[in-house]
Amino acid sequence: MGLSSSPPSGFRDFPPDECAAREYAVKAVSETYRKFGFSQIATSAVEDLAVLTGKGGGENEKLIFKILKRGEKLAQELRPPLILNPGQSFELSDLGLRFDLTLPLARFYSRHQSLLPRPFKVFNIGPVWRAERAQKGRYREFYQCDADIIGSESLLCEIEVISAILAAFSALNIRNVAVFLNDRRLLFAILDRAGIPENKRGQACVILDKKDKIPPAVIAQEICALCGESAWKSLSAFIAADAGGGQTVPALNKEYYKEAASVIELFNTLKASFPENIFQISPTLVRGLDYYTSSVFEFRHPALSGSLGGGGRYDRLTEKFGGPSVPACGGSIGFERLLLLLEESGGVKRAAGPEFCVLVFDESLRQDAIELAARLRANGRTVDLYTGTGKLGAQFKYADAKKATHAILIGPEEKAAQKVKIKTLANGEERLVDAPPHENSNEWPSLSSAS
Amino acid sequence: MGLSSSPPSGFRDFPPDECAAREYAVKAVSETYRKFGFSQIATSAVEDLAVLTGKGGGENEKLIFKILKRGEKLAQELRPPLILNPGQSFELSDLGLRFDLTLPLARFYSRHQSLLPRPFKVFNIGPVWRAERAQKGRYREFYQCDADIIGSESLLCEIEVISAILAAFSALNIRNVAVFLNDRRLLFAILDRAGIPENKRGQACVILDKKDKIPPAVIAQEICALCGESAWKSLSAFIAADAGGGQTVPALNKEYYKEAASVIELFNTLKASFPENIFQISPTLVRGLDYYTSSVFEFRHPALSGSLGGGGRYDRLTEKFGGPSVPACGGSIGFERLLLLLEESGGVKRAAGPEFCVLVFDESLRQDAIELAARLRANGRTVDLYTGTGKLGAQFKYADAKKATHAILIGPEEKAAQKVKIKTLANGEERLVDAPPHENSNEWPSLSSAS
Repeated sequence: MGLSSSPPSGFRDFPPDECAAREYAVKAVSETYRKFGFSQIATSAVEDLAVLTGKGGGENEKLIFKILKRGEKLAQELRPPLILNPGQSFELSDLGLRFDLTLPLARFYSRHQSLLPRPFKVFNIGPVWRAERAQKGRYREFYQCDADIIGSESLLCEIEVISAILAAFSALNIRNVAVFLNDRRLLFAILDRAGIPENKRGQACVILDKKDKIPPAVIAQEICALCGESAWKSLSAFIAADAGGGQTVPALNKEYYKEAASVIELFNTLKASFPENIFQISPTLVRGLDYYTSSVFEFRHPALSGSLGGGGRYDRLTEKFGGPSVPACGGSIGFERLLLLLEESGGVKRAAGPEFCVLVFDESLRQDAIELAARLRANGRTVDLYTGTGKLGAQFKYADAKKATHAILIGPEEKAAQKVKIKTLANGEERLVDAPPHENSNEWPSLSSAS
Repeated sequence: MGLSSSPPSGFRDFPPDECAAREYAVKAVSETYRKFGFSQIATSAVEDLAVLTGKGGGENEKLIFKILKRGEKLAQELRPPLILNPGQSFELSDLGLRFDLTLPLARFYSRHQSLLPRPFKVFNIGPVWRAERAQKGRYREFYQCDADIIGSESLLCEIEVISAILAAFSALNIRNVAVFLNDRRLLFAILDRAGIPENKRGQACVILDKKDKIPPAVIAQEICALCGESAWKSLSAFIAADAGGGQTVPALNKEYYKEAASVIELFNTLKASFPENIFQISPTLVRGLDYYTSSVFEFRHPALSGSLGGGGRYDRLTEKFGGPSVPACGGSIGFERLLLLLEESGGVKRAAGPEFCVLVFDESLRQDAIELAARLRANGRTVDLYTGTGKLGAQFKYADAKKATHAILIGPEEKAAQKVKIKTLANGEERLVDAPPHENSNEWPSLSSAS
């Protein structure tokens, strides 16, 4: 009995068509970010565990894939004979897989800042890992596409990050994205004035953060249980306004809530810069991460529950690395959900086939096939060469499976006449053309611009 | 005191210029593979530990980064009170990071083969992880660029894989690559006829595999110690011939060594297909991996000690997953060494700057700057918008640091006159041009073809 050929639970492989769709989307997002003046970096997949833990990652810290210590370090922990008493534990891990791209960026910036432009507009696209319970649409390895600006307090950062992410959606023909805006300081003021004490704020936020996933009655119940009915009454006005999809929030009294000034300015600036009515202030928007200090924002799409991405301002994350705090703001596209949308809208690009598939008539003409393929490739053509041992029938099927435009062949007669046979697979048309090096004559298919 | 801002030992971050060089090389290699008819796939970074261990990976198995079990599974192993006696150990890990792309490919193929063309020409580019002692030029996270053909016994597979890898080097202007060819069956026959018994074959191969890294005298000494002087005498003829750089091996008597037939055919076919004299049969070439069954090959460059890549035929690897054995052959480019060569030859591509960097005159003209950037981007231009809070002097420095071609600005006078100011940073020339939407007049820089 062999091993399972599936990847571990929650992990995935991508066959050619899926891989092509992912490459296409990654390319569209990176090119958009680049066109907005963001520079690409890459950081290591593995981080010191101390970097990944401690204030910053919030709930995600529980989801770290930890890497076992190795060699002598591990042996030291576990050298028998050994007794472990209740309350004791081992230090078995020193490294972990990154669970987002923001913490690694804060580390990267702390290290390299003297060499970087300020502000530093940066993007990073790559996999992150979370040990979540695997379920439909939730994976343990998934891509994020982050755009961040580090080193400026200006609201222009929020505007640029949001604009770049919206442009990436546009580049992929994803329409009808809505943007929800909030400010952590406003949210905290609302909670405060609803009578929710600071020591219950975290729990209240966890409840509010679920409000798109569970029924309003349950939210009400949980908030009442935690903070009492008057707190719920005060909050419910904001929640109702958010859910209404209106662009202003009646309960948001600007005089009373000075903390709303920044998000209102952001809202007005974005509204003035985009023709579409896609922005909304949502004072109960939480976003899960502990490290956000003021602005938070979220992208949603009518065809998806939950978000298509989001971000916010995290002005203190670099403090972790001993330097001064540096203002920072960033956003992330949930790449797997983006692909889901592309799948559903039929907007994915499949892998393209080669222009020519060179078949091998028989062993005695193998060298001619090799040289024909080499010659066509030298001329810039995209050429597959059949490498199997099947007969011609199987070879034509192979050319079909590869989605080749033409199959091409030198048989004994073609060789004698210094010709090659080209079969166009879409219509079955065959023709004889001059053998290379004369293939630039009019008989040959013109060099495809795609290749 | 903060945490270290360095990545863990042996891991790396890539700032924009390095990241651009890597992206450039990845793109050149993938486009070459694609032009040869290879389809791209991606497999998960994490594999079940059982897939990574067991016959196949050879020495690399010792270098697996193992992932700690999580939650209840880990608690079960380590629930105190607990006593570990000598000879006992824990099962602390169930997953590991892949150490190459070949084992994951064998798993992938076993799972998906019914849906794939046969032969399946496939490439995979991505990071792999090995817990090696970190040293100069050796990393714990590094990229491999693999091209493989699964499902055919034909020597055409070896020829296609080697040709595609050589074409990738060419696409990156890396010249003078030499290709060393061998066949495991020939190597084993040579060891056999030198009187080295099968139970010492593995150790003898480990010694021979080091022959480019340590002095010949040490090799001689180690082989003599392991197998006696007559064995060394028999082997040394082959080693001397290999080192001589000749294309044929005098000691390789074709009558006596029938096992040489395949590698001689491969050598002759390649020699007939490539104008350059870059191929050499090297009967003592080992290549480290246990899973190779016949052909092995290695790419070398005069500016590098060790190899620039290699590969071989591994006809039995899919057996691990319970299916029938499927013939397979593949090669891998050592991406980090490739980049080293590109660095040294000055052939790396640095990150390009934006066409325009839009500066912000002051707070009151911020909206004009935002709209100018949006307008130019809508027209397909690559545009950075300054998002900091610095004065104009700092903003021009920023535009320089970003390697922008032009800085562009709307001040109060420009606004009144419906103009914008463009400064070309290379020569300091300034000019006033019509404000958008009139920017397609002749005064504006023409749309760069690069963007």
